[in-house]
Amino acid sequence: MNGRSKIRYGMVGGGEGAFIGAVHRMAAALDSEYELVCGAFSTDADRNRRSAEVLGLDPGRAYATFDKLLPAEAALPADERMEALAIVTPNHLHAPMAIAALDAGFHVLSEKPMALNLAEARVIGAAVARSGKLYGLAFTYSGYPLIEEARVRVARGDFGRIRLVQVEYSQGWLSRPIDRDGNKQAEWRTDPARAGLGGCLGDIGTHAFQLAEHVSGLAVESLSAELTAHVAGRRLDDDVAALLRFEGGARGVLKASQVAAGDENGLRLRIHGEEGGLDWSQMEPNSLTLRWLDRPTEVIRAGGPGLDPSAMARLRTPAGHPEGYIEAFANLYRSFGRTLRAGAGRAGAATPPPRGAADWFPGAADGLRTMAFVEAVIENASGDAKWTSLAG
Amino acid sequence: MNGRSKIRYGMVGGGEGAFIGAVHRMAAALDSEYELVCGAFSTDADRNRRSAEVLGLDPGRAYATFDKLLPAEAALPADERMEALAIVTPNHLHAPMAIAALDAGFHVLSEKPMALNLAEARVIGAAVARSGKLYGLAFTYSGYPLIEEARVRVARGDFGRIRLVQVEYSQGWLSRPIDRDGNKQAEWRTDPARAGLGGCLGDIGTHAFQLAEHVSGLAVESLSAELTAHVAGRRLDDDVAALLRFEGGARGVLKASQVAAGDENGLRLRIHGEEGGLDWSQMEPNSLTLRWLDRPTEVIRAGGPGLDPSAMARLRTPAGHPEGYIEAFANLYRSFGRTLRAGAGRAGAATPPPRGAADWFPGAADGLRTMAFVEAVIENASGDAKWTSLAG
Amino acid sequence: MNGRSKIRYGMVGGGEGAFIGAVHRMAAALDSEYELVCGAFSTDADRNRRSAEVLGLDPGRAYATFDKLLPAEAALPADERMEALAIVTPNHLHAPMAIAALDAGFHVLSEKPMALNLAEARVIGAAVARSGKLYGLAFTYSGYPLIEEARVRVARGDFGRIRLVQVEYSQGWLSRPIDRDGNKQAEWRTDPARAGLGGCLGDIGTHAFQLAEHVSGLAVESLSAELTAHVAGRRLDDDVAALLRFEGGARGVLKASQVAAGDENGLRLRIHGEEGGLDWSQMEPNSLTLRWLDRPTEVIRAGGPGLDPSAMARLRTPAGHPEGYIEAFANLYRSFGRTLRAGAGRAGAATPPPRGAADWFPGAADGLRTMAFVEAVIENASGDAKWTSLAG
Amino acid sequence: MNGRSKIRYGMVGGGEGAFIGAVHRMAAALDSEYELVCGAFSTDADRNRRSAEVLGLDPGRAYATFDKLLPAEAALPADERMEALAIVTPNHLHAPMAIAALDAGFHVLSEKPMALNLAEARVIGAAVARSGKLYGLAFTYSGYPLIEEARVRVARGDFGRIRLVQVEYSQGWLSRPIDRDGNKQAEWRTDPARAGLGGCLGDIGTHAFQLAEHVSGLAVESLSAELTAHVAGRRLDDDVAALLRFEGGARGVLKASQVAAGDENGLRLRIHGEEGGLDWSQMEPNSLTLRWLDRPTEVIRAGGPGLDPSAMARLRTPAGHPEGYIEAFANLYRSFGRTLRAGAGRAGAATPPPRGAADWFPGAADGLRTMAFVEAVIENASGDAKWTSLAG
Repeated sequence: MNGRSKIRYGMVGGGEGAFIGAVHRMAAALDSEYELVCGAFSTDADRNRRSAEVLGLDPGRAYATFDKLLPAEAALPADERMEALAIVTPNHLHAPMAIAALDAGFHVLSEKPMALNLAEARVIGAAVARSGKLYGLAFTYSGYPLIEEARVRVARGDFGRIRLVQVEYSQGWLSRPIDRDGNKQAEWRTDPARAGLGGCLGDIGTHAFQLAEHVSGLAVESLSAELTAHVAGRRLDDDVAALLRFEGGARGVLKASQVAAGDENGLRLRIHGEEGGLDWSQMEPNSLTLRWLDRPTEVIRAGGPGLDPSAMARLRTPAGHPEGYIEAFANLYRSFGRTLRAGAGRAGAATPPPRGAADWFPGAADGLRTMAFVEAVIENASGDAKWTSLAG
Repeated sequence: MNGRSKIRYGMVGGGEGAFIGAVHRMAAALDSEYELVCGAFSTDADRNRRSAEVLGLDPGRAYATFDKLLPAEAALPADERMEALAIVTPNHLHAPMAIAALDAGFHVLSEKPMALNLAEARVIGAAVARSGKLYGLAFTYSGYPLIEEARVRVARGDFGRIRLVQVEYSQGWLSRPIDRDGNKQAEWRTDPARAGLGGCLGDIGTHAFQLAEHVSGLAVESLSAELTAHVAGRRLDDDVAALLRFEGGARGVLKASQVAAGDENGLRLRIHGEEGGLDWSQMEPNSLTLRWLDRPTEVIRAGGPGLDPSAMARLRTPAGHPEGYIEAFANLYRSFGRTLRAGAGRAGAATPPPRGAADWFPGAADGLRTMAFVEAVIENASGDAKWTSLAG
Repeated sequence: MNGRSKIRYGMVGGGEGAFIGAVHRMAAALDSEYELVCGAFSTDADRNRRSAEVLGLDPGRAYATFDKLLPAEAALPADERMEALAIVTPNHLHAPMAIAALDAGFHVLSEKPMALNLAEARVIGAAVARSGKLYGLAFTYSGYPLIEEARVRVARGDFGRIRLVQVEYSQGWLSRPIDRDGNKQAEWRTDPARAGLGGCLGDIGTHAFQLAEHVSGLAVESLSAELTAHVAGRRLDDDVAALLRFEGGARGVLKASQVAAGDENGLRLRIHGEEGGLDWSQMEPNSLTLRWLDRPTEVIRAGGPGLDPSAMARLRTPAGHPEGYIEAFANLYRSFGRTLRAGAGRAGAATPPPRGAADWFPGAADGLRTMAFVEAVIENASGDAKWTSLAG
Repeated sequence: MNGRSKIRYGMVGGGEGAFIGAVHRMAAALDSEYELVCGAFSTDADRNRRSAEVLGLDPGRAYATFDKLLPAEAALPADERMEALAIVTPNHLHAPMAIAALDAGFHVLSEKPMALNLAEARVIGAAVARSGKLYGLAFTYSGYPLIEEARVRVARGDFGRIRLVQVEYSQGWLSRPIDRDGNKQAEWRTDPARAGLGGCLGDIGTHAFQLAEHVSGLAVESLSAELTAHVAGRRLDDDVAALLRFEGGARGVLKASQVAAGDENGLRLRIHGEEGGLDWSQMEPNSLTLRWLDRPTEVIRAGGPGLDPSAMARLRTPAGHPEGYIEAFANLYRSFGRTLRAGAGRAGAATPPPRGAADWFPGAADGLRTMAFVEAVIENASGDAKWTSLAG
């Protein structure tokens, strides 16, 4: 931060009991580069007030609704008002809120998925373009240091031409109909009106897809997929499988499930090229295993020898001091914040920095690709054609 | 063996330098229940002679060709002649040799795949039926003790109704065009005339498929698949991916590759039901991980507490003394041999024992299913229809 | 924090380039319950000023020396001045600074080891007692959620009477004489005047010892030890091994090394009782393996089924979202802060809460035990007697 | 075997229900290079007869007692009589039987420990010397391919000068007083008259010690140790810990336990030198982990790239086909057998081949060292002196 003042940010959603809002706040707090200055945490007035109080916020900046937040903040002096808004609501609110905030002159850091569907996502994309503001998307897993290492190694050709991309994201928490038993997290995620077109597909299939394209550097050209709702009465899928065809001839499989009973948060990415392959698992994120045709298996460790400087820059502690999910998330906030501080107000600042840059973060481009993926899967899974194109 | 004499067996194929023939001989030797008495190890006369000599065989029973072996053995006294024949040749010879041996009154233990195609496999099936002889197929991985444990646990309902079946078999040894560089193992496996319809599909995809149906107890009803030959000029696939629909609504993914550069022999099976799931990897075969919705993860260990007696019966040493591939293979030989000794000559002895029995082994039923799988994948992968039925 | 104001803390040491000071600041920041208000980060005036600037501190509260900090802060209004001081200097300054701060009416959170030797540590203990202020010691590893789980399970008798305690802490970063090549971290740690009596012994042996007593709930009664300086010319040990006799008959081994070339931060604790044992490794801290005589191995997972509420309370994310070293450290800050807010000013508040309480943290008692351990090891290792008593 | 006849061997001990005798027979059978021709399996006549029958032995060569076996076999024609004797009895019989067999002109492959004490072991050593016969000791774990790899890498200096040797062997099966509850294996192992001086010390502490010296290539010069009998009433130790001083300044810790409840057969060896270290665990024996100061961690895999030819020669299957305990044991038999065939009858054949040779196996030298270790531990553990010398 080079001695500059902390970034003042606001939050919509994330009141008492919400999971992801608290994660955003920890991610923002970790490096002491952000300060939470306002919020509309809940439409329940009591919850909203209590949330603000616990968070030590000025009561006057705990807004009853999102509609009140933007104009009130815009009316504050430039050195007081929020600079960026974190959107941590259910999915159906992502697009309208992001668009409004961007158009009101605020940078936006949004939870994924970007929107309910591709059309909505494109409207956000247009708002990003016209506003000249930053737009970040919480594809958290791309914030892991060893994912950066993996991306660098693929990009510089360590494995030769890529042939295989396998990504899986295995959870079990929706194995029972808890969406009908009062679990709030489950309830909105299985409601098409609030979750969007995909259930498991939108919630975690998008993470898997983004990670696969992000690390491989290859776009999926077409796919063949199946969606299943294993739990009786569930209105959205809780299980996805897809065969993927990447540009350049690589072949892939994407598997995501929320009914893999007993599984926690099993995101794993494997990529093989002509000379070897990489293997990374989110639940043990500080190791990246590299297997080779001609030499022994290597385990690249967070903080250990052989790490690329861009991965090292995403670590906070020496080797052997495990970093995890919150640190990966904080890496997105840090890159977003540094980009904001470096370029806010200058032409072109709206574009996330290129991926080779120190401070890239996922944004509208990732969002649009993942929404196109969601729509392609749904189209394919509901028809008889084997392959559906996923136009760039 | 209860004091009975050793089973006299012969071998076709498996001369000097061959991999799988030597494995068969170790598997047969391990428990001292078999005796190798004859063979036609190679059509190269010198190799055949040397192989017999190294193996300590009576030179008179090292036959120059398979054609000579059967009549010569049949002409020997009943207590001298071979009782069973191990077929360890390239694939295209499996069917004619098995049929000839069965029809000549010998039990057969054959390498997989059963045959070049389903039609051939059915002819073997008919020969098994009319001969009343045993027919075993070397689906080695079903011989692992913890695969038996997995099968038992699924069958008795530990996980509730099965929803997901994921099987993968990842090798990298065909990443380069070694088939054109003089590697004998690679050469015939990529030659349609000797390998059959599938490359990777037939060689290891069949193992994955057999294991998935064997442990889940569920038949695949239809599939959608892709076959790829990643290495330029290769005439058969070296990579397979398939979406599977099982009877009863379970969904599955099968992934097999021989171009996953750096991977060794990565066969892994995961099955999830309503209450939890199992996870087994061939390369660390002595642990079976069980994850549950409502209780801590369990690791069932070979020889440890909680093991079903039918799994325990497939172990030879106490917990912590790792057993591996050869022991799994030997379990097939042992079950085959005990069934042979228990029932040879009695009506009905030809049928492998039911799977709940102490001494089941994979046979014609597994062979027919896997050949049907191969044909269904090829049909699906070469057409535009999304799903291809895999009739029982 | 229940809406109360953040705890205002100061820091001594931890300027630019220091490792552990930055960790303290992240740990304090993570839950937004602390605010850094002042510091004396470096005796180098430029570094001190730059550090304060990067941290966004009021320049007037970046004190040139520690001597200036205490009176200046004490002179501020009660609702402005720092409440607690974090001491993150080299070891020889821990005692004088802690005593001065306590006596000036500030709570103290100090890096370990407590002091250069046991006599000094006792003087701190007396200051804690007379001041009525909180004194916390950064035995970070006891802040891990699964260490709390382990402690609870031992305490409630899950394993029966404890027989074996094995603790090891294996690092390799001092394998070469980097202490003579300008590495600041290495330099002071191998200088008796600044590090104290022990090298590896004081730096990480104390962590291992504290964890062993903390989780086992058993005091070491006597020990037999060896200290080695493997690197030529090194003035303090870089390697420790000790046989431990615990009260009640349990036997233990402690092994710590900083010349285990290639090892990162390999702290591992194993405890066995009559019925089973536990196994925890700091580098994969979100799993606790339990092995049993009569039932399958269990893997208790952070956030998963079977976790004790007091362990669950130390987690911030759902199962499968890995937490690590910074979160463990933040747990100490959180407990310290909550104890401070709950009881500051009341009689008895100086004592850390009992270990069954929600918010215990390591303090003077742990510090005194570890300093006694250091002295006992040194006495034993330099003499001919086999056993040295480690009086309570 | 180069076409030569199989080695005819006999066995003493190992009747029905015995564990280790069956392992010896599998190890001998695996490569079809041995033939069991005679035995004295049990002093219980019925068990002896049934054992021989199950093993398919000529009833006339199932001797009622060991005393009858030697003269009867010696009286047979040279091409019929046994060539080598496998001794798999309780410990107290090892020495008298080995001496008698050697003096009668038979090669001997004995279970460990070599004898009840060092004096006895020396008498065996003398018998080996005067007989000119081979004497092998079943230090099974040195037969693992990756132990050979580890030994080679240390010997050729990959890690630089060795500083640390850590070996542990952790079992839990004697956690309860099963020795008083009819468990035959436990009963004799805890009876000083049959087990010898050490309990856990002799049974598995010797394995750990042999492995440490074997792989490090360094002799232990002195030790400080503790022996404990944790189970009330047990007459021999069930737990050992020792600090080790190796020649050249390396330091070590040896820990062995049979009351680590829940542990199976946890033999692990770690060795660190100036540049890196190795880590091997018997329960996952096909990986050898190498950690380095300056480059990424490597995992050397059985059959994979980077393996030394002498390790590769101890494998029977390609990478990814796990081999285990029986194969390691069979490696000892194979080396013993090849040495026997190569040199029997020639001067000097009695000496096991040097360790760089293809077919080394553990013998009298390892046996004498381990007996000296046992005696030194017992002396040290029962006295007040800190260090006890372990003369070469």
